[in-house]
Amino acid sequence: MKPVLLIALGGNALIRSGEEGTVQEQFANLRNPAVQMARLARDWRLVITHGNGPQVGNLLLQQECCAKAPKLPLELLVAQTQGQIGYMIESTLDEELTRLGEHRHLVSLISYIVVEKDDPAFADPTKPIGPVLSEEEAKSAPYPVRRTPKGPRRVVASPRPVTVVEREEIRILLENDFIVVCCGGGGIPVIRRGRAFQGVDAIIDKDLASARLAEEIGIDLLLIATDVEGASLSFGAPEEKLLRTVRVEEVERYLKEGHFAPGSMGPKVEAAVQFVRSGGKRALITSVDAIEAAVAGEAGTEVVP
Amino acid sequence: MKPVLLIALGGNALIRSGEEGTVQEQFANLRNPAVQMARLARDWRLVITHGNGPQVGNLLLQQECCAKAPKLPLELLVAQTQGQIGYMIESTLDEELTRLGEHRHLVSLISYIVVEKDDPAFADPTKPIGPVLSEEEAKSAPYPVRRTPKGPRRVVASPRPVTVVEREEIRILLENDFIVVCCGGGGIPVIRRGRAFQGVDAIIDKDLASARLAEEIGIDLLLIATDVEGASLSFGAPEEKLLRTVRVEEVERYLKEGHFAPGSMGPKVEAAVQFVRSGGKRALITSVDAIEAAVAGEAGTEVVP
Repeated sequence: MKPVLLIALGGNALIRSGEEGTVQEQFANLRNPAVQMARLARDWRLVITHGNGPQVGNLLLQQECCAKAPKLPLELLVAQTQGQIGYMIESTLDEELTRLGEHRHLVSLISYIVVEKDDPAFADPTKPIGPVLSEEEAKSAPYPVRRTPKGPRRVVASPRPVTVVEREEIRILLENDFIVVCCGGGGIPVIRRGRAFQGVDAIIDKDLASARLAEEIGIDLLLIATDVEGASLSFGAPEEKLLRTVRVEEVERYLKEGHFAPGSMGPKVEAAVQFVRSGGKRALITSVDAIEAAVAGEAGTEVVP
Repeated sequence: MKPVLLIALGGNALIRSGEEGTVQEQFANLRNPAVQMARLARDWRLVITHGNGPQVGNLLLQQECCAKAPKLPLELLVAQTQGQIGYMIESTLDEELTRLGEHRHLVSLISYIVVEKDDPAFADPTKPIGPVLSEEEAKSAPYPVRRTPKGPRRVVASPRPVTVVEREEIRILLENDFIVVCCGGGGIPVIRRGRAFQGVDAIIDKDLASARLAEEIGIDLLLIATDVEGASLSFGAPEEKLLRTVRVEEVERYLKEGHFAPGSMGPKVEAAVQFVRSGGKRALITSVDAIEAAVAGEAGTEVVP
């Protein structure tokens, strides 16, 4: 069997900085990663996960504008974005595989992920979602609000992923040589209550969810695709230095020293570390445009044991 | 291997007549069909399809209320409802299977369905979606509008399903004894352009999509679950008569004579006829509350060769 590659697509695979996020933009942006993933499918079995930040923010905005339809909790909006983005990735990849003459089975799955009821994140929501609020809106908001560099925004908890409910199904699909799109937007967050699952108002970090899935199903290579070349020391400063191949102990030290921005490069490096610490042989952080080059060892940051 | 049962859940499995469609209502309504489906999973392999009328109407309403986020085409709203409803069905069924001690693999798939570019339905849109419009809105609407008993409403084309793109994947999953939720809202409608698929503004009838899937993957029993006991002659009149077991030629004659309302019982009977005409042994039309009873031969309308 071919080795398994998990590609975690960042939000910019669909909506690039400064774009509004029209359907034309989203499909156009997906083309380049899809072409690369179709070529990689010749040598790898593929699992594809993805973010949903701007899309879930838009759904939230739309339902808050509109008094005529009942508002749905965040868990269902995450589920909606899994449908939308799963379809966009699957259909674009489907086209590119067909163009290459590669006949592969391909599915997009709804995925939900268990989090702990008493995860400390619930007492300290930090993940900004939805639009920037006016001062007045921020004061009267019925939900937690935090100041961000852009202004006050609603924040939700971002608990750690414990287990992907569909892990067994995903593993069997990979054994059957399927390409699987799953864990969109970090997965639909649920807590377990006895035999039942209960959705919660939270957004799981999609890179940490991908690392958890990677550990659970056993993959060979984890690739996190984002909007910069890789993980850098002193990011944005004149002495900025892109890390190329780096050992897990070394990058862990940089992480502790605060080299990587929380909520941005931080969780990506953390996901790479977690994967390698749990037995993974190689994790990559690279740009959406350099997925193939990174797999070939020619771009990005590579974390090794 | 156990025989395969396809259950097409009507909109009332989630939102009952007169309800607003809150998340609590939708989960509560799903409980009864989920309990029945979990018990049926002991003797059958299951494929579950579902409608999305009220949910897609709400998304349309919400995006039309809101100038702050880009509007998405109908195909993506259908994809969003597949995510939302797929998650609700999967998680509720998951709970009920666990309660019964049945460990079964279970997935909800994004599905898209090919329609013909020159389907006559595109020139004659008939399927009402979204809210009732004011006279003024109806006059200035940039899309086709038709008068319905409730008032003027936007209408979209409802082309016939040609093929389910994921049919091979669904067949393999059933062979591996998975329970599969798919073809939500009639499937995301696409036309084929050379090697590419292009989404279109349309809603495929979910019962016709289910019958097409049933033919393509080869199933043993098609069950259409709705809000009435079954197909009746002279529906709503004092001489109303529920059809119980009926041969396909006979029900085809009633269909031609106009006994079944277009856009309501009509396509359900048509789907049952199509399935039996293509070699199916048994099709059932029954209430969401009598799924098990109908399979046992104790309720609903049964169409046989």
